Amino acid sequence: MTTDLAFDWPQHFAHRAGRMTASEIRELLKLLDQPDVISFAGGIPDPHQFPRDAFAEAYGTLLGDPANARIALQYSVSEGYRPLKQWLAGHMEGRGVPCTEDNILITAGSQQGLEFLGRLLLSPGDTALVAAPTYLGALQAFSAYEPAYDVLGLDRGNATPEAYRERAAGAGGAVKFAYLVPDFANPTGDTVPLAARHQVLDLAAALDIGVIEDAAYQALRYDGAEVPSVLALDIARTGSIERSRTVYAGTFSKTLAPALRIGWLCAARPLIDKLVLVKQASDLHCATINQMVMYRVAKATYDDQVKRVRTAYAARRDAMLAALARHMPAGVRWTRPQGGMFVWVTLPDTVDGAALLARAVAQARVAFVPGKAFFATDAAANTLRLSFSLASEAQIDEGIGRLGRLIAATA
Amino acid sequence: MTTDLAFDWPQHFAHRAGRMTASEIRELLKLLDQPDVISFAGGIPDPHQFPRDAFAEAYGTLLGDPANARIALQYSVSEGYRPLKQWLAGHMEGRGVPCTEDNILITAGSQQGLEFLGRLLLSPGDTALVAAPTYLGALQAFSAYEPAYDVLGLDRGNATPEAYRERAAGAGGAVKFAYLVPDFANPTGDTVPLAARHQVLDLAAALDIGVIEDAAYQALRYDGAEVPSVLALDIARTGSIERSRTVYAGTFSKTLAPALRIGWLCAARPLIDKLVLVKQASDLHCATINQMVMYRVAKATYDDQVKRVRTAYAARRDAMLAALARHMPAGVRWTRPQGGMFVWVTLPDTVDGAALLARAVAQARVAFVPGKAFFATDAAANTLRLSFSLASEAQIDEGIGRLGRLIAATA
Repeated sequence: MTTDLAFDWPQHFAHRAGRMTASEIRELLKLLDQPDVISFAGGIPDPHQFPRDAFAEAYGTLLGDPANARIALQYSVSEGYRPLKQWLAGHMEGRGVPCTEDNILITAGSQQGLEFLGRLLLSPGDTALVAAPTYLGALQAFSAYEPAYDVLGLDRGNATPEAYRERAAGAGGAVKFAYLVPDFANPTGDTVPLAARHQVLDLAAALDIGVIEDAAYQALRYDGAEVPSVLALDIARTGSIERSRTVYAGTFSKTLAPALRIGWLCAARPLIDKLVLVKQASDLHCATINQMVMYRVAKATYDDQVKRVRTAYAARRDAMLAALARHMPAGVRWTRPQGGMFVWVTLPDTVDGAALLARAVAQARVAFVPGKAFFATDAAANTLRLSFSLASEAQIDEGIGRLGRLIAATA
Repeated sequence: MTTDLAFDWPQHFAHRAGRMTASEIRELLKLLDQPDVISFAGGIPDPHQFPRDAFAEAYGTLLGDPANARIALQYSVSEGYRPLKQWLAGHMEGRGVPCTEDNILITAGSQQGLEFLGRLLLSPGDTALVAAPTYLGALQAFSAYEPAYDVLGLDRGNATPEAYRERAAGAGGAVKFAYLVPDFANPTGDTVPLAARHQVLDLAAALDIGVIEDAAYQALRYDGAEVPSVLALDIARTGSIERSRTVYAGTFSKTLAPALRIGWLCAARPLIDKLVLVKQASDLHCATINQMVMYRVAKATYDDQVKRVRTAYAARRDAMLAALARHMPAGVRWTRPQGGMFVWVTLPDTVDGAALLARAVAQARVAFVPGKAFFATDAAANTLRLSFSLASEAQIDEGIGRLGRLIAATA
């Protein structure tokens, strides 16, 4: 037994897998879940809202019947459980997206959909257009494939197609897609207005690229008028999902429950057909039993459940906006989301969100996520993300009060 | 609405994702599942063996308790459910692999483990060493990352390290790992003898590469003495899992049930730590509820269940070997597996397995998988894979009888 027998794994990792960032944030979230800390950090649903009875009934009914149980516990097809895909095609049609089950792939949450799209569309050096800030998990999913990032402007307008093309060529590739969370985005809570959605489609047409629409929070609207999805707008332009450049990533994680890991992609069939092969190579298929259960629970409770979580989260959103108005010192700005789980706070230029967090946890016993991690390129350090999905209304007022006093003492 | 608005997705796929092969085989398996065809094609467990009562009880108990249900339906950590990882560490220790829960990552079946390892270890042009033939799903998982393949010899000896190195350099990269299914391999049913396992470790040491041990069938031994796993041998050489070059891919799919998509990787901690990030970027985590259920079912029934499926499959293996001896014409050879689900048949040189399949389904109403698909490089077309896991003993005798008569009429 000599030292040189030992194998050094990290020396053997391919470069492309070395770029996955931001896990520090998730580590941080774990640390922040201390019982005496009021946490606005984790962007996760309130587990008291899960339709437990519906899930218990669905698992029980399936496994109570021998013939169903043999199907529910067996291998299954990569594209997903057909009745669930049919239900989702109907669901999408109800949102202005006429399609069939063949336009649907079942994925392990929308996260897996994003990772598959990164794998399928990016070569090293290619450019992905993302908002600044944007969803951390999308950056993690795409970064394994070594893209450059450029900024997709959703409020202040975009660069010209030529400018994007030149910058992408300078980075060693071409622009491959635009990614956006159009409704109640993680982390800002912002909704992309109709005109800006059209501008994204115009830009994508000019660049001849695909558009990835991350619809994770789309069902969670608390007020204001619904804006058509980017995929619906694309179909209205082109006449058919088969001619559209948009792929829609949906999930049951924010409405029914995240733990079953059931989401979906909806797009033109040639893309879905290829992604079925990616799914097969990746993990064969999503858990059969969970797909069958999600179909039953969605069919039985989806609309009621969406109403229920909207009511619960709307009250917390209201409580957080009221608390911010009450407790934040002058010079602090924040978004007014019409849905979702997040408020984005911009501090005075001199205050660093990460430094503030350290003091907030140690002194004020309140937690949030510093904004820096959500930027692919130039980060605005004077920002932070607050989640209102988990804390009670009383905790929200108390926690925002503590945070406001700390910022006032800091700035 | 003009034609040039339509988007052409396939034009936008990255080259690396264009190499996924062999889905035709899975399509074929679907077509072959016709009620009047005796099928030896699909390599899947017998659903009548699934411990349905244990699963029903575990899902029911978890969801029957509000506090447990809130955990079971919520997001979870990427590395996996701790009690399941602890159970698996004990399970691995019982197989000569002293380790802790930190050496375990929970994956969506062993298939996801293989895909993660391909992603983490391969750059385009690198070489993967695989047996000829080998598991189709491994080739699918690795091929997305555009490796070259070279042959890992498990019976007739290997090339010199220098020869492997030269061929890999000629293919534009370096040898990155050796992949093998040491016990009752898919598709051959063969078990790699102890001396050959040591030779693989010697070769890997000479090449300074990792070893991927696919243990999918390891628990399904029907007779003969157990051979230590490659990881156990590696640890016996190096003194510790932390110094070993072998990563072990395990699964509950062949023992408890495949549909929950729960498998695991077991390896040195620096590799597992990196793979946790890959998991996080890929799908956040495996289904929480399924991990909690699998822990309960494994703890309650694993040993009994393994005994039960061994007894059932051993009888079918015996029936198939007896039927082959009874019905096959001279010039046909086959393996005598000590476990697993497969027998590998070599036909006379002039008989093509794929052409035989067409006639077998049309004329004899019997199905199998032609052997060609299981070769990464030079395929032996005169081969086929028979699975004995699904058909009854009477069907096996009848089906092999039909096949034997067809081959006799063909050769």
